[in-house]
Amino acid sequence: MDNRSIGVFDSGLGGLTAVKEIMRRFPNENIVYFGDTSRVPYGTRSKETILKYTHSDIRFLLSCDVKMIVIACGTASSAALPEIKTEFDVPIYGVVDSGAYEAARVTKNNRIGIIGTPATIKSGAYNKYIAGYNPDAETFEKACPLFVPLVENGHFNTPVTKLVIDEYLADIKKAGVDTLIMGCTHYPLLKEAIAEYMGDDVTLVSPGEEVAKFLEKKLNSENSHSEEKDKDQYRYYVSDCIESFEELGGIFLETKINGKVNRIDIEKY
Amino acid sequence: MDNRSIGVFDSGLGGLTAVKEIMRRFPNENIVYFGDTSRVPYGTRSKETILKYTHSDIRFLLSCDVKMIVIACGTASSAALPEIKTEFDVPIYGVVDSGAYEAARVTKNNRIGIIGTPATIKSGAYNKYIAGYNPDAETFEKACPLFVPLVENGHFNTPVTKLVIDEYLADIKKAGVDTLIMGCTHYPLLKEAIAEYMGDDVTLVSPGEEVAKFLEKKLNSENSHSEEKDKDQYRYYVSDCIESFEELGGIFLETKINGKVNRIDIEKY
Repeated sequence: MDNRSIGVFDSGLGGLTAVKEIMRRFPNENIVYFGDTSRVPYGTRSKETILKYTHSDIRFLLSCDVKMIVIACGTASSAALPEIKTEFDVPIYGVVDSGAYEAARVTKNNRIGIIGTPATIKSGAYNKYIAGYNPDAETFEKACPLFVPLVENGHFNTPVTKLVIDEYLADIKKAGVDTLIMGCTHYPLLKEAIAEYMGDDVTLVSPGEEVAKFLEKKLNSENSHSEEKDKDQYRYYVSDCIESFEELGGIFLETKINGKVNRIDIEKY
Repeated sequence: MDNRSIGVFDSGLGGLTAVKEIMRRFPNENIVYFGDTSRVPYGTRSKETILKYTHSDIRFLLSCDVKMIVIACGTASSAALPEIKTEFDVPIYGVVDSGAYEAARVTKNNRIGIIGTPATIKSGAYNKYIAGYNPDAETFEKACPLFVPLVENGHFNTPVTKLVIDEYLADIKKAGVDTLIMGCTHYPLLKEAIAEYMGDDVTLVSPGEEVAKFLEKKLNSENSHSEEKDKDQYRYYVSDCIESFEELGGIFLETKINGKVNRIDIEKY
């Protein structure tokens, strides 16, 4: 057993989709979450900047004495994790491997769509993992840079969102995929609109949820489950405004987090 | 005369609308531009974070030995400039005062619309200046958080942009304004679509252009024009990827800037 917290970070709010699933599966685990809200979004930045930000996010979480780190950000998992994986003393897991594994497992016609931020799509990370798990699978990718701002502005299933979905997903739909990886942890908030557009026959994979399944295996095999909840079982840190994170974070997690969020200066890490 | 450069900064590319006008009006002035592309956007962040970023942007420009600083960013001009104006040894001018002055001057029915980022609208800065110049003017504001991502993704006059414009501007149009301040330096790239929506009777004010008129007065009254162009008359600095700034910056300025852009680490300032 290991009662230390699981550290989770994302560029902003999206990573809470992973946190929610970790909470559901492991009621005794302690969690420290960091949302880099003063530097969000990551997905439209260069690889060099994403690497720099990922380094500082990890250094902050290490200062919280975590037993492992989950990068609940599609962009940092794709563009930074492969290079920095071995630089730190704690295990670091991203959402890409788990998402690719699930998509490769559930596809029946071996046609998989991948949507994500420009940096995620440019990295080709999902393709590499999918090719490893299912060499017969063919992939169809599309960068969707407007999805994050749409989500962050509450446009979950509006006429604007529908029009942008049509712009981004028309080719993938035409390609006849039966599985679509929502390769950015913001995208599950567009799930209803995306599912409506893609139709009932297409399975949507949410890597933020899949990584929680992967953690289950890890915690079991390493016998590192927590057996004791801390007094503050869930701690949230952000690099910008607490209030807006409390409000939107509550929507993501479907529970109030007011009073549990602290602000840090991430540029010091 | 003063041959030192004019320093200009913005959260990203938008400030180049001001730079273009300064170049046009003052062919002998030397310009140093900084675009904070690793931390863009500013307009959805808290006042505290905007203040912090503005401080470091100014410190960087001061390290380039500038004679004055133009904040060509609606958000930093609104949310930060009033508080930091007197902290530094060089004069610092924002786009809000000039934009408000022009709107107050051209309105005939004293009904002025103001659109900007959430931080700009929240600051109430335009209203304060307009009230000073024209106490009879009534203002109608709207935050337009999706306009910056639309511009940054090349959605200048698409069906998506038109739909978002209708969402944001319907009430202002209904209010019968005859003048609309495009209170974010990104917005002039949506000018065609906004003008089409608002109709011919509405005058669009672009504060980034207006600030250049204001500089004319300042340079004249202080006799601080430049009489000699530097070898590198125009220098551009960014905090993220050079290539994408060269490409999009060229579109803003309608001239190639390849090879003239350098990258700095803004977190060190």
